[in-house]
Amino acid sequence: MNIEGKNAIREALSSGLTINKILVDKNFQGRRDDIIALALEKKVKLEYLPRQILDKKSKTFHHQGYIAECVDFAYSTVEEILEEAAKKQESPFVVLLDGIEDPHNFGAIIRSCECAGVHGIIIPKNRACQVNETVIRSSTGAISNMKIAKVTNLKEAIETLKDNDVWVYAAEASGENIFDKTFKGGVAVIIGSEGKGVRASVLNYCDGVVALPLKGKVNSLNASVACGIVLFEILRTRK
Amino acid sequence: MNIEGKNAIREALSSGLTINKILVDKNFQGRRDDIIALALEKKVKLEYLPRQILDKKSKTFHHQGYIAECVDFAYSTVEEILEEAAKKQESPFVVLLDGIEDPHNFGAIIRSCECAGVHGIIIPKNRACQVNETVIRSSTGAISNMKIAKVTNLKEAIETLKDNDVWVYAAEASGENIFDKTFKGGVAVIIGSEGKGVRASVLNYCDGVVALPLKGKVNSLNASVACGIVLFEILRTRK
Repeated sequence: MNIEGKNAIREALSSGLTINKILVDKNFQGRRDDIIALALEKKVKLEYLPRQILDKKSKTFHHQGYIAECVDFAYSTVEEILEEAAKKQESPFVVLLDGIEDPHNFGAIIRSCECAGVHGIIIPKNRACQVNETVIRSSTGAISNMKIAKVTNLKEAIETLKDNDVWVYAAEASGENIFDKTFKGGVAVIIGSEGKGVRASVLNYCDGVVALPLKGKVNSLNASVACGIVLFEILRTRK
Repeated sequence: MNIEGKNAIREALSSGLTINKILVDKNFQGRRDDIIALALEKKVKLEYLPRQILDKKSKTFHHQGYIAECVDFAYSTVEEILEEAAKKQESPFVVLLDGIEDPHNFGAIIRSCECAGVHGIIIPKNRACQVNETVIRSSTGAISNMKIAKVTNLKEAIETLKDNDVWVYAAEASGENIFDKTFKGGVAVIIGSEGKGVRASVLNYCDGVVALPLKGKVNSLNASVACGIVLFEILRTRK
C-alpha cells in the first residue's frame, strides 16, 4: 500500500502504520522539512529518486515529491481477539461491524473502541469498508493498538463468540432502552451499516437488541457516534 | 450560498435547507431525473439556463448542470435558545463548541444534539467552523430542528447561561469522571476543539469539568463522538 503527498505521509508517520521507506524527489536532497525530520526520528528509510519515477509510481498524481511504501495491515482472527482479552485477564469486549462503508466512520470507530478498551473488531470480508489508508488515518494511531478480524461470515463469528461465553447484542432502533440494561461478563455489540442498520438475518443470531433513546425528529445518529455511546454505556455498567 | 452538483443538491433538498431555486442546464429541459422529481415535490423553482451561464456561476467547476441557490443559514441568539427550552417546558440543555474546525464534526455534533434533545448550540464567531454547506449536509437534516447561536464572546454566553440557572460544564480530560456525576436542572456542556480541547480561559468560567474515563493508549476520541457520549450520559442521569 502506497501513501502519497505530504499531509497523508505526515499523518501516516504518526499513525502507527509500518512504513518500509519513503521515496523522495531527488531534487529535495538536502532539504530538512518536517516530513524528513519525522522520518529520520522514526528511523524510516528515505530513497531519493528522479521525479519521473515518482510520477510513474503515483496513483493520485498529487504526490508532491513524496511517496511512502507501507506494509499492508495485518488482520487478526476472532480467536486472537479472545486471546487478547484472556491475556489481559478481562472479560472479552468485542465490536462487530455489519457493513460500515464510510472509511472515516470506520476510523472513528477504531478510535472509540481503543478508548473504551475493546479487545478487537470483527468486520465482514464483503460489502464493507476494509482497512485502507483513509481508515488508518482516521483512526489517528488507534489502529496500531487494535486487533481487527476479517471474516467471511458474521454469523459464524457470532457463534464462536457465544461458544466462548460472550453475550452478543445488536445496536438497533427496535431494541430495548440500553439505559435500562446492565452488562456483565463477556460482551459483544454489533453496529449496523450507515444506511441500513443491522441486517435482519444477523439480528436473529443475537442474544439481545439494545437501542439508544432518541429524542429528536431526525432520529439518526452518525454510526461512529452511536457506537461510541453504546461502548461507553457498556463500559459504565460493567465496571 | 450556492450548492453545486447532483449529490450535494440531492442531499440539500432533503436536509431542511431553504433552496430559493435550482439553476439547471438548458439542455436538460424535459429530463425527469431524481433531482428534478425531488425539486418538484419540494416545490422548489427550476430555472433553465445555458450551460455557459452555469459555468460562469460555478465555483467548484463540477456543477454537473445543477446549481442550487440557497438561503443563508439563520442564526439564533442565546436568549432564543433559552426560550426554546421554556417553550418545551424543559430545563435548558445547551452545547457550546469552543472552536470546532472540521465541518463534518460540526455536522455530526448537530445530529447528536438533535437526537439528545439539546435546545441549541452556541459557537464563537471567530476561529471556528461556521454553518456552511458541508456542515448542513453532514447534519443530515438535523440542522432544520436546531437553533445555533453565533457569539463574539463565549464567556459572555456562559454568563448569560449561568444567570438563567444553567450549570455550565466543560468536557475535558482533566475533569472528574462523568460516570460519578448526576446532572440536574439546566445543563450546558462545552466541547473543545479537535486538537486543543477547551481553552484554559474558558475553563475558568465553568461550574465544573467532566471527563470520560478512557482506557486505551491513544486516549483521544473524535470530538463528535466524545460530544455524543457526554450528551447521552447527561440525558441518562437527568431523566
